Amino acid sequence: MAPQYARSLRFRLPPLLFFLQTGFIVVFIFYVDIEQNPSLYYKFQDVHVMVILGFGFLATFLVRYSFSGAGFTLLVAAMAVQWAVILNGVESMYHRGKIWINMRSLVVAEMCTASSLIAIGAVLGKTNPDQLLLIALLEISGFVLNGWLLQTFLKVQFLNAIMLLHIFGAFFGLMLSWVLYRQGSEQQHEKEKINRKTGLFSVMGTLFLWMFWPSFNSVLVEVDHLDRGRKLRAVYSTYLALAVSAVTAAGFSVLTSPQGKLNLFHIQRCTLAGGVAIGVAMSAVHLPWVAMTIGFAAALISTLGSRYIKPLMLFAFECHDTCGVLSVHGLPGILGWMVQLLLQIADSDDLTTAVRFAVFHISTLLITLSLSMILGLITGFLLKFNFWRPPPNKKCFDDQNFWEFPHLAVKK
Amino acid sequence: MAPQYARSLRFRLPPLLFFLQTGFIVVFIFYVDIEQNPSLYYKFQDVHVMVILGFGFLATFLVRYSFSGAGFTLLVAAMAVQWAVILNGVESMYHRGKIWINMRSLVVAEMCTASSLIAIGAVLGKTNPDQLLLIALLEISGFVLNGWLLQTFLKVQFLNAIMLLHIFGAFFGLMLSWVLYRQGSEQQHEKEKINRKTGLFSVMGTLFLWMFWPSFNSVLVEVDHLDRGRKLRAVYSTYLALAVSAVTAAGFSVLTSPQGKLNLFHIQRCTLAGGVAIGVAMSAVHLPWVAMTIGFAAALISTLGSRYIKPLMLFAFECHDTCGVLSVHGLPGILGWMVQLLLQIADSDDLTTAVRFAVFHISTLLITLSLSMILGLITGFLLKFNFWRPPPNKKCFDDQNFWEFPHLAVKK
Amino acid sequence: MAPQYARSLRFRLPPLLFFLQTGFIVVFIFYVDIEQNPSLYYKFQDVHVMVILGFGFLATFLVRYSFSGAGFTLLVAAMAVQWAVILNGVESMYHRGKIWINMRSLVVAEMCTASSLIAIGAVLGKTNPDQLLLIALLEISGFVLNGWLLQTFLKVQFLNAIMLLHIFGAFFGLMLSWVLYRQGSEQQHEKEKINRKTGLFSVMGTLFLWMFWPSFNSVLVEVDHLDRGRKLRAVYSTYLALAVSAVTAAGFSVLTSPQGKLNLFHIQRCTLAGGVAIGVAMSAVHLPWVAMTIGFAAALISTLGSRYIKPLMLFAFECHDTCGVLSVHGLPGILGWMVQLLLQIADSDDLTTAVRFAVFHISTLLITLSLSMILGLITGFLLKFNFWRPPPNKKCFDDQNFWEFPHLAVKK
Repeated sequence: MAPQYARSLRFRLPPLLFFLQTGFIVVFIFYVDIEQNPSLYYKFQDVHVMVILGFGFLATFLVRYSFSGAGFTLLVAAMAVQWAVILNGVESMYHRGKIWINMRSLVVAEMCTASSLIAIGAVLGKTNPDQLLLIALLEISGFVLNGWLLQTFLKVQFLNAIMLLHIFGAFFGLMLSWVLYRQGSEQQHEKEKINRKTGLFSVMGTLFLWMFWPSFNSVLVEVDHLDRGRKLRAVYSTYLALAVSAVTAAGFSVLTSPQGKLNLFHIQRCTLAGGVAIGVAMSAVHLPWVAMTIGFAAALISTLGSRYIKPLMLFAFECHDTCGVLSVHGLPGILGWMVQLLLQIADSDDLTTAVRFAVFHISTLLITLSLSMILGLITGFLLKFNFWRPPPNKKCFDDQNFWEFPHLAVKK
Repeated sequence: MAPQYARSLRFRLPPLLFFLQTGFIVVFIFYVDIEQNPSLYYKFQDVHVMVILGFGFLATFLVRYSFSGAGFTLLVAAMAVQWAVILNGVESMYHRGKIWINMRSLVVAEMCTASSLIAIGAVLGKTNPDQLLLIALLEISGFVLNGWLLQTFLKVQFLNAIMLLHIFGAFFGLMLSWVLYRQGSEQQHEKEKINRKTGLFSVMGTLFLWMFWPSFNSVLVEVDHLDRGRKLRAVYSTYLALAVSAVTAAGFSVLTSPQGKLNLFHIQRCTLAGGVAIGVAMSAVHLPWVAMTIGFAAALISTLGSRYIKPLMLFAFECHDTCGVLSVHGLPGILGWMVQLLLQIADSDDLTTAVRFAVFHISTLLITLSLSMILGLITGFLLKFNFWRPPPNKKCFDDQNFWEFPHLAVKK
Repeated sequence: MAPQYARSLRFRLPPLLFFLQTGFIVVFIFYVDIEQNPSLYYKFQDVHVMVILGFGFLATFLVRYSFSGAGFTLLVAAMAVQWAVILNGVESMYHRGKIWINMRSLVVAEMCTASSLIAIGAVLGKTNPDQLLLIALLEISGFVLNGWLLQTFLKVQFLNAIMLLHIFGAFFGLMLSWVLYRQGSEQQHEKEKINRKTGLFSVMGTLFLWMFWPSFNSVLVEVDHLDRGRKLRAVYSTYLALAVSAVTAAGFSVLTSPQGKLNLFHIQRCTLAGGVAIGVAMSAVHLPWVAMTIGFAAALISTLGSRYIKPLMLFAFECHDTCGVLSVHGLPGILGWMVQLLLQIADSDDLTTAVRFAVFHISTLLITLSLSMILGLITGFLLKFNFWRPPPNKKCFDDQNFWEFPHLAVKK
């Protein structure tokens, strides 16, 4: 039986934090050094702002869980980037004896962190910070493994592999949420709401993601002699896809509303769907209108997904998805994947190339989906034990479990 | 008679959004392509942050209208940039057969969008999103037309023409607000207030505008051989003008207050007046102290305007200006124009040059004012019809007209 | 006897503002000109965001003092940068006849401003804006004098001298707070609290400081031929120190909590301690794990300081430190200084060099501490007079002293 009162974090969180942090420092002592490569600094800053501030404030929307949303995101991200730097450097350590820190490795680490923050979005409010940390570390391990598998066995390009972060994170999180589902908890989530204040804070997070997404998608695009415009094309495509996405999300939000009104959750989440889809499809998109059409389609499925699939998932499959990661990252990611497939096939000169690409591209998705779902399931089972002392049903979505409120002022 | 209850947006907003968005995509299919020119990326990001986050959160200050303030700004901006890209590219389409998207065209599009957001500031809370969208598209059309007229017939430099965006937007918005004025609505605007929470969100918007304004003013300044320091001079001038402007606005806010206290509205708006004035006058300002004096004068007239002219406008002319665009953008813009005139005359070698410049400079202003006011009037008359179903008087400045609040939490 | 009611700011704030502002403009008229040196623009922007938005919103955490926190920071910063530009240019004025404004001089001015904002943190809520302005100007004067003394007599490098800004600001503020302490005020500070809303705003400030700190520490690092990687090393060291600092602060926050929970104040402040310490120690840190260990130690002493030393200071020494500047800037700064000493000694080839460096390094700290504390005491005595009309005990930490609330909406 789950404990009815939140217990002190004292014997759980600090040991985990210090154990991991000490371990990371030890690895850094022996294996990590600094390399010089300044060119990406400003786009790195944009990605950093998206991961820390964007995801952090996006997670503040729950009315009583905003300290946890922002605070745990910072905590998880601070730990996850170190882990991602280590994991991504394993190969270099094997070959060159050192893990090198440079702008590129930090950008990649922040992207892996973004993937884990997406996964966490599905279980936000129903877990404690220990669980969130472990989820992040396991998710990143899986995602790095997935990238290594795709690059090694399927010769997928690095950029295409890393842009699967949305799909990997979303399906990992969904499986996790499914395993961690608790019977009879639907009625008790009365704190799972938005109010004016937390709504605005989360819109702020949305806007930072929305504004800097062109940097996120373009930062790792490499300029080569054959196609000098790739990097800028990624910037413009993302910009246009997001603009159309914002318009479309507003339109479908009203259209599917029984009262004919806008829904803040859609504005806050589904406006970002275009950035997800174009990120995955990017390498095959050459014209601005294609990017815009992708933005339209992504916002469409994202809004419909939030409105209709999210409640269905809860009641039919007992899968509760706090931040709607299926609709915001999962489905638009798969849409982007499909568009890339179609565009590449349309671009192919002959049938053989097209079929070969299709097989290869479908394998990419299948491996990513299987790995993310299996690892999500395993992580879920590992974290289901009462040993982790998750918050009891009545205390879900509540900061008071985790934060001192000794001097909370009475509202005027 | 105006409808007494807010009606569903369903048959109004989505059709407009999808019609426009589809139209834009069609134009993009046939006419728009990407050009490569990366140099402005980081300053473009600053402008982007100002337009989306700065203007967006500046508009959150009304106590019950903050979702609409931030949300509609995003929606309007997402649509307006596309329209501005198309309109600004018409000439290139005519000559070269294509509209080219590059960093410069996006920066210009965002500046046109800023102009339309200024106009919208005058009618914020008294209109619905359909009206806001149409205002933005018409205002941008007028502003682009104005720039074309000035450049074609008066040989005004492109940078000087675009910096009139504050004047154009403000007077367009004022006329609009005058036409859309509703008898007997003064007593009913009890929701037109600031509280601690929305005040802080809007101060955040102010700070983003204040911090990144040097980029806004300098991004389009071109460095030439005759005057290599122009661009940096624009940065430093704007920086200094804004610093002085913040100090001065605080001083006059206290001085004109019956209780001898600071007024948040002044801190939030009039601190920005220096950036407006210096933006217009920039090309004639060569010394730091001149920039500082402009900042002083701009904040002075802006604060006095907010304190004394805004209520006068309401009662004497029945013109209700929600965001005080006359005081924040209109008057400081005209001040900048006057300073530019005086400095250019003082710089002239002989009387003939001075008189010629004066005539030319006065024509520039007259054309801009006439065009903005006439188009504002026309737009106002077009939108006055009940066909558009504006929010009834009692529902002005209220998010509940437009946003689903099914799960709004009861305040603790 | 202190006045029991807040009096109008009219005869105090505006005269001071206009007197100072006019004086500054006059100095600018005669002595200041613009120099061209664009290279630092983007990092300058990051520092600007930290000073205006970061410090501004960090100061919004008090439940009834958030307008003042953000507003006064803007006001003080706008004035202080001008003063710092003038003071830092005195030497150049003496030798070259002009004070030159360039990116570097603005960055230095903003860092001096940051130092004064740290000092202000110790007396926030217990002073009026006149006092804050004078504190800032005197603190900057002292800090610039300190830098000049260190560089002239001890040949301390410019970068090392300016990075003492945390230590100087913190001890200046502590002495100030000690002198300005009022008997019997402990019970009355019931407004000195955080709530959900102001907590989130201040976390936003924290995140901006946290994200952009790598730019803050690295912007003035000069790349030379002997050590080409210095600048990037400063970026990576700060990044890693902050990541570890965030993790460690969370760990010790829980560990020292009687309820075993996180404390928002620690998350909001102590996560930044790593950036302070590494900023001071930076020039001697060459390996990533050293930076991480510094981040760990800094967050440790910062969290313990906030938990145990802050209350002790209040009851044993009658020194009330609103923002905990001792724990956040003072102690981590001294830690950084100690680490630098140890690392330099360990790096020394022979004993003579080590001893010489130690003597020199200890003198640096002693001069900085003495000067900051003496000037803090003097400033405190100057501002203790009732002439300045500080807010009465009952009105401390309250916006209503300083801000018009005529149209404050009643909370729904």
